[in-house]
Amino acid sequence: MSITLYDLAGAEAGRRFSPFCWRTRMALAHKELEVETVPWRFTEKHSLPQPNEGRVPVIVDDGEVVHDSSTIADYLESRYPDRPALFRNDIGRALTRFVQNWTEIVLHPGIIGFVVLDIHRHIGPADQAYFRRSREERFGKPLEEVVKDREARLPAFRENLIPLRRTLERQNFLAGTSPAYADYIVFGAFQWARAISDFELLAPDDPVAAWRERMLDLFGGLARKSPAYGG
Amino acid sequence: MSITLYDLAGAEAGRRFSPFCWRTRMALAHKELEVETVPWRFTEKHSLPQPNEGRVPVIVDDGEVVHDSSTIADYLESRYPDRPALFRNDIGRALTRFVQNWTEIVLHPGIIGFVVLDIHRHIGPADQAYFRRSREERFGKPLEEVVKDREARLPAFRENLIPLRRTLERQNFLAGTSPAYADYIVFGAFQWARAISDFELLAPDDPVAAWRERMLDLFGGLARKSPAYGG
Repeated sequence: MSITLYDLAGAEAGRRFSPFCWRTRMALAHKELEVETVPWRFTEKHSLPQPNEGRVPVIVDDGEVVHDSSTIADYLESRYPDRPALFRNDIGRALTRFVQNWTEIVLHPGIIGFVVLDIHRHIGPADQAYFRRSREERFGKPLEEVVKDREARLPAFRENLIPLRRTLERQNFLAGTSPAYADYIVFGAFQWARAISDFELLAPDDPVAAWRERMLDLFGGLARKSPAYGG
Repeated sequence: MSITLYDLAGAEAGRRFSPFCWRTRMALAHKELEVETVPWRFTEKHSLPQPNEGRVPVIVDDGEVVHDSSTIADYLESRYPDRPALFRNDIGRALTRFVQNWTEIVLHPGIIGFVVLDIHRHIGPADQAYFRRSREERFGKPLEEVVKDREARLPAFRENLIPLRRTLERQNFLAGTSPAYADYIVFGAFQWARAISDFELLAPDDPVAAWRERMLDLFGGLARKSPAYGG
C-alpha cells in the first residue's frame, strides 16, 4: 500500500511549492517508497488527517498519521531501516540538524523576501486573502514592499551561501558522494523558489547551481518534472 | 610511542592559541592517543619537519609527517579505526565539511576582528613584526583600527551563531549525544579567542556558552587547563 502525502499546492493542483513537503517527497523517493500526493491548500486546515498542526507535510502510512517534516524523516528512517539511509547514524542525524537550522535561519528568510509576492500570485483567491494577511502581519508591510528591492539584496544572499558553495565545490552532495536528507533540506528551499518564481537565486556558474541540477535529476527527474514557474 | 604535535604558541610556551591546532589536539585526545606538543612560533617556518606548508598543525606519528588539520583528522580516522570515531562514516565526514566551511567563513573572520590585537600582545617580538605586517596587509589598516569598534560588531556576530545555537539547544553536542570532530572544529574557534583575549564572545545564558563549558570539561579538562587570557 502506498503512503499518502498531503502536499501544499497552488491554484493549479500540480504546482507543489512547500520547502518542507519537498523534503518529505525526496525522502520518500530516497527510501524507494511509493507515494500518492493529495494537493492541499493553506485554508484547508480541517481537511488534514488527525493529528496535525494545521500544516503540511502530513503523511498517512498504513493508517498511521505522521506530521512535521523532521518527525516524518525520523519515522521513515526507523520504520524502513533496510531502505537507503537518510542519516545513516546518530552523527549523521545530529549534523543534519545543523544543516536544517542553517537552512531555516539563513536560506528561508532570504528566499521568502524574494518570492513572497510570487507565491501570492500562484495561489487561489481564498488562500490569497489568508496568505496576504498573515504574511503582511509578519513582515509589517505590504507584500509589494517586501520584494521591492530584491535585486539589491541578491548579492548578500549569494554571499551567505559561501559555506554551502565551498562544500559543494569539493563533493557532489552535502552528504558526500550520494545525497541524503541534508541535501533534501537545502534543496527544498531552492525547489520552493523554483516552483513559484522566475527570480533566479543563483549565478549560472555557481557550484550550488550545478548541485541543484544534480538534485533535479534524482529519482528520474522527480523534482524537475514538477511544474516550475511558467511551467 | 607518542605522537608529536607542532603547536602554535605565544611568547609563553604554554599559551596555545591556534584554532586549527586545537582541532588536532582534541582529535588526538578523542582517539585516546598520547601526544607530545612542541611549541612553535609563526616565524619558525624552517623548524617544522618536512613536508609542510609553513603552518601548523603538523604531526609526526612513528616517523610519518602529516600536516593540515583536515588531512590529520582523516589520517587519524583511517590509521586508528578501532579508536572512537571522529566522523563514523562518509555522511559524517561530508557533513562535517559543511560545519568546517561555516566555521571558517562565519566564525573565524568574526573572531579575528575581535582579537587580532590581543594575539599581537601575546606573541614574541619577532612574531609581532611578522604578524602585524601580514595582518595589516590583509585588513588594509592598522590592527588597532581593526578592533576599534568590536563592541558594536558583537550583536551581529552573536546573531550569526543562531544556526549553532538552535542546534545546541536540542542536543549536547553538534555530533549528538557525544562530541565528534565537528565539535572540535567549532570549539577550536572559541578556544583560540579564549587563549589570547578577555573579550567575551558569548552572553552567559547562551546555549553555545553552555556547550563551550562541556567542551572545556572533556578529556579531564584538557582545554580548560590550557592558559587562557590572563591565566
